[in-house]
Amino acid sequence: MHTRSVVSYMFELKVVSKKRNEMIDITNDIQNIVDKKNLQEGHVIIYVPHTTAGITINEGVDPNVQRDIIETLKRTVPERGDYHHSEGNSDAHIKASLLGSSVTILVEDNRLILGTWQHIFFYEGDGPRNRRVYVDLVPR
Amino acid sequence: MHTRSVVSYMFELKVVSKKRNEMIDITNDIQNIVDKKNLQEGHVIIYVPHTTAGITINEGVDPNVQRDIIETLKRTVPERGDYHHSEGNSDAHIKASLLGSSVTILVEDNRLILGTWQHIFFYEGDGPRNRRVYVDLVPR
Amino acid sequence: MHTRSVVSYMFELKVVSKKRNEMIDITNDIQNIVDKKNLQEGHVIIYVPHTTAGITINEGVDPNVQRDIIETLKRTVPERGDYHHSEGNSDAHIKASLLGSSVTILVEDNRLILGTWQHIFFYEGDGPRNRRVYVDLVPR
Repeated sequence: MHTRSVVSYMFELKVVSKKRNEMIDITNDIQNIVDKKNLQEGHVIIYVPHTTAGITINEGVDPNVQRDIIETLKRTVPERGDYHHSEGNSDAHIKASLLGSSVTILVEDNRLILGTWQHIFFYEGDGPRNRRVYVDLVPR
Repeated sequence: MHTRSVVSYMFELKVVSKKRNEMIDITNDIQNIVDKKNLQEGHVIIYVPHTTAGITINEGVDPNVQRDIIETLKRTVPERGDYHHSEGNSDAHIKASLLGSSVTILVEDNRLILGTWQHIFFYEGDGPRNRRVYVDLVPR
Repeated sequence: MHTRSVVSYMFELKVVSKKRNEMIDITNDIQNIVDKKNLQEGHVIIYVPHTTAGITINEGVDPNVQRDIIETLKRTVPERGDYHHSEGNSDAHIKASLLGSSVTILVEDNRLILGTWQHIFFYEGDGPRNRRVYVDLVPR
């Protein structure tokens, strides 16, 4: 008999950043939640409840890709500029909107369906900080 | 007895923009729909059916953040440029793709689960115009 | 009697790109899947499992809009630059994160609910290549 676990639940993941701009690989953390709650088929919504951080999926094998993403975003949206917001983190707010606050990933046979090189990254734009990520499992 | 309302339904929200570039806070409108239809647990998909407008989540307390986002997008994708599309709104099309056409927000205990500073903004790139936003409630 | 088809299923769409940077209209392919599986009401999640390609919704009538999007992205994130990743496609990785890896589209009466000018585009950033797109139908 196939036992169906209770999978419909929202989780909170804690993320600790150490630099001002940083991409933190959370792929294993998300897969662990999928495992633990036994989500067999469906999708996962990963949501960042911050306005100076975002979430993105990109290559996770060569760390130089992360470096190139961080540096290109810095060049396009510089830390110092003619900004009006007085907290000195306008660049991080803008990067948050460019990357987006959530990603959706499909799940099949209890596995996140990611491409060969795809990893899930929390994008820190105004660290170091203690951050949170919400993970919602949506079974079929 | 707990009465479960019919929550699975698509709504249309009307948005009226007054400037060419503008961020319009629609957080309360979305929460009102969640309230009215009594969505207790699940998520909301908010979709913009336009190609010169987008949607984004960012800080809603200091309006200077919105100003910085609008001005940085203008600087990165100027209104006047070496564009091929003849309608004079190529910049708005590009901004629409950079910000995206939809956001997904989790719902718990009949409340949108947003971070402390997060508000939901309709991004107008080619106003003033009468615009629409589709809101789909997905119960757990 | 209304016959309800089995609609909960994940599909794979093959996309063949011919240029390094290209926007490929996949709207009809997605609508065909919605038709074939008889998804009446719900939404569709379209996911790109690549790190040098993305997905976006934009105007599909005047091809100059696509040209302007491609050229503006090229100008903002040039192919040649001071990059660390050695494969010569850092620009494509960055564009993938700017556009995003998935879109969600609502479905009503067996039709994708798109705006008048909206088409769904696979964004190729490092072609020509054989690519894949995952399509997940989520009935109400």
